[in-house]
Amino acid sequence: MDVSNPQGSWFDGKVVALAGGVGGAKLAHGLAQLLPPEQLSIIVNTGDDFEHLGLMICPDIDTVLYNLAEVNHPVQGWGRANESFRVLEEAQRLGHDPWFLLGDKDIALHLLRRSMLDAGLSLTEVTRNLARRLGVWHPVLPMSDQPVRTVIITPEGEMPFQEYFVRRRTKPTMLGMRLAGLHAARASKSVQEALQAADGIILCPSNPFVSIGPILSLPGVREWITSKPTIAVSPIIGGQALKGPAAKMMKEQGMAVSALGVAQYYADLIEGFVLDEADSSLAAEVKRLGITPFVTDSIMRNKSERRRLATKVLQFLKQLTGAIEV
Amino acid sequence: MDVSNPQGSWFDGKVVALAGGVGGAKLAHGLAQLLPPEQLSIIVNTGDDFEHLGLMICPDIDTVLYNLAEVNHPVQGWGRANESFRVLEEAQRLGHDPWFLLGDKDIALHLLRRSMLDAGLSLTEVTRNLARRLGVWHPVLPMSDQPVRTVIITPEGEMPFQEYFVRRRTKPTMLGMRLAGLHAARASKSVQEALQAADGIILCPSNPFVSIGPILSLPGVREWITSKPTIAVSPIIGGQALKGPAAKMMKEQGMAVSALGVAQYYADLIEGFVLDEADSSLAAEVKRLGITPFVTDSIMRNKSERRRLATKVLQFLKQLTGAIEV
Repeated sequence: MDVSNPQGSWFDGKVVALAGGVGGAKLAHGLAQLLPPEQLSIIVNTGDDFEHLGLMICPDIDTVLYNLAEVNHPVQGWGRANESFRVLEEAQRLGHDPWFLLGDKDIALHLLRRSMLDAGLSLTEVTRNLARRLGVWHPVLPMSDQPVRTVIITPEGEMPFQEYFVRRRTKPTMLGMRLAGLHAARASKSVQEALQAADGIILCPSNPFVSIGPILSLPGVREWITSKPTIAVSPIIGGQALKGPAAKMMKEQGMAVSALGVAQYYADLIEGFVLDEADSSLAAEVKRLGITPFVTDSIMRNKSERRRLATKVLQFLKQLTGAIEV
Repeated sequence: MDVSNPQGSWFDGKVVALAGGVGGAKLAHGLAQLLPPEQLSIIVNTGDDFEHLGLMICPDIDTVLYNLAEVNHPVQGWGRANESFRVLEEAQRLGHDPWFLLGDKDIALHLLRRSMLDAGLSLTEVTRNLARRLGVWHPVLPMSDQPVRTVIITPEGEMPFQEYFVRRRTKPTMLGMRLAGLHAARASKSVQEALQAADGIILCPSNPFVSIGPILSLPGVREWITSKPTIAVSPIIGGQALKGPAAKMMKEQGMAVSALGVAQYYADLIEGFVLDEADSSLAAEVKRLGITPFVTDSIMRNKSERRRLATKVLQFLKQLTGAIEV
C-alpha cells in the first residue's frame, strides 16, 4: 500500500474514520493509501455482527479488512475475491439453509476469529491479530468489545439485522431500530484513545442509521466527536444510496431522502459535509445548516478513485481544521 | 443400505458395538448392512475429541458416521471422499499451522455441530441430528455428553491425544494415559439404555487403550458388559495393528504384541474372541484363558468384506449367546 506523500503530509495530525460496510470500507481504503498507520484509525460498526453456522461473523469489520488488504470481492459488497463455496455447498447438502453466503476463504477467517475469541481474546485483540495476518497495518477498531446487536423494528415484529438485511433483502418497512446490549456496552479502550487523540474525524459514506448510528450510540462517542473537527461524506447521491437500504430507511423514517437529509441528521456533529457533484445544488442548503459544504465526485469505482476521494476529503478536513483552529 | 436378511435374522435381539476409529467404523458399517437400526447401536469413543480452529472435532464419531453414510475417504482412515481443502489453505495463508487436516466437507459438518452445541443441544442430540442429515439411521451414540479427553503420558510430559497422535505421529513413547474429565463424566442415557437392552456386545477392532478404553472407563460400563454375552475382534493381526499405534502402545505397556495380548487385556469382559487366520496358532492359548476363539479372515478391504466379517461375527455371537443362555 502506498502511504508515501510526495507533496508533503496529506493531513497534519491524526485522523479517525468511522465506517460501516462497503462505502465506508472503500473510503477507509482510500485514506489508508495516503496516511501511515500512526495517523489513521478506523472505527468499525459491530451492530451487524452475528453468530451463524457456529461462526462469529463481523460483516463490517471483515469488509474493512478485506478492502484494506485488497482481497475483497471486486463487485459484490462483501466477501473475498476468487472465492469458492465448498463448505456451504456441503452444509446445504446436509440440510443447512444457505441464506447467508459464506465463502471458504471467508470461513477460514471466521474460524481463526472464533478460536481466538474462544481462547479469551477480546474482539479488539482478535481483529488486530486478523488484520496483521492479512497484512493490514492500520488500526481497524471494533467499536466495542461488548456485543451490541442492531435489531430492526418492522410491522412483522423485531428482526435481527442480518435477518432483515440479507434473508429479507431489506423488504420489510423499518419502523425503527434498537441496539440490543447497548446498556452494557462501551466504546473499547482503543476507540476511546483514538477519538481522544484525533485531530480530525471522518464519518465515511456508510448507512447513517445501522452503520454509523451504533458507533454514535456508545456512551461518550458523540461528545468526543463534537469536540473535534468532523466531516461526513454523504452516502446518498442523487437521492439514492449506492449500496444498501439507507435511502429506503430515510424515507421510512420520514426524512428527506437526499444528501441534505444526511447533513441534517449529522448537523450537531459535523462542521463539513462532502456532497457528490450530482448534488451540488444542495450545497447552499447545507451551508444554511451552518455546515461547510464540499462538492466533489464522490463515487469510488476503483482503487485510484478511492485514493482520489480520500485526497479531497483530507484536503477539506485540513482546510476546515485550520479554519477551526484559527 | 441393505439391512434385509434373506436367510432370516442374522442375530436374534439387540447388538451393541463399541467402536473407536477406522477399524471399528469398518465393522460397524458391516454390521449396519445386516441389522436394522432397532437391532444395532454403536457406542463411540469421544476421548479423541478436541477443539481446534474454532471447531469441535469428534474424530471417532465422524469416522463412524462417514463410514455408515458411505461418504468416507476410501483410503485414508479419516475424512470424506472427494474432499477439498480451500478453508485450510486460506487459514494457512493467514498463518495457521495446518497440522490437523480438515477438509471443506468435514468443516461443514463441524460447523453444524458447533452451531447445535452452541444452541444447547447435547453431543448425543447433535450426533443424532448429524447422522440423520447424512442418512444414517442406526443409533451412533457418543459414549458421554460430558467431555472426557485422553491425555498421553510421555517422557516429554503429558500430551493431548491429537497432539500425540497427529502432530507427533505417535512418535513419543506412551508411558501411560489418563482421561481428563472422567471424574465428572458418565455414560449418556442413550448409552446406558443401549447397554441395558443389549443381547450381545461386540468390541470392534479398535485400539484397546485409546478407543475402547475410554468407553470402558465410564462408571457402570464394565459391569453392563460383563453381564452380557460379549465378543471382541482383534485389532492386532500377525503382531501388527492394521492402522494406528495399538501395537506400539502394547509394546510400550509391556504387553505381548499379539492378538493374544488383546484377548488377555479383555479377558474379564469377553466370552468370545475373533482372531485373524494369520493368528490361528493363538486360538488354543485364547481358549486357555477361558475365552472361545473364532478364526476368520478379519481384514476388511471393501464394503463386501466388511459385511462378510460382520456376518461371521454375528454368527459367532449368536452361537455364543445360545451357549450362554443354555
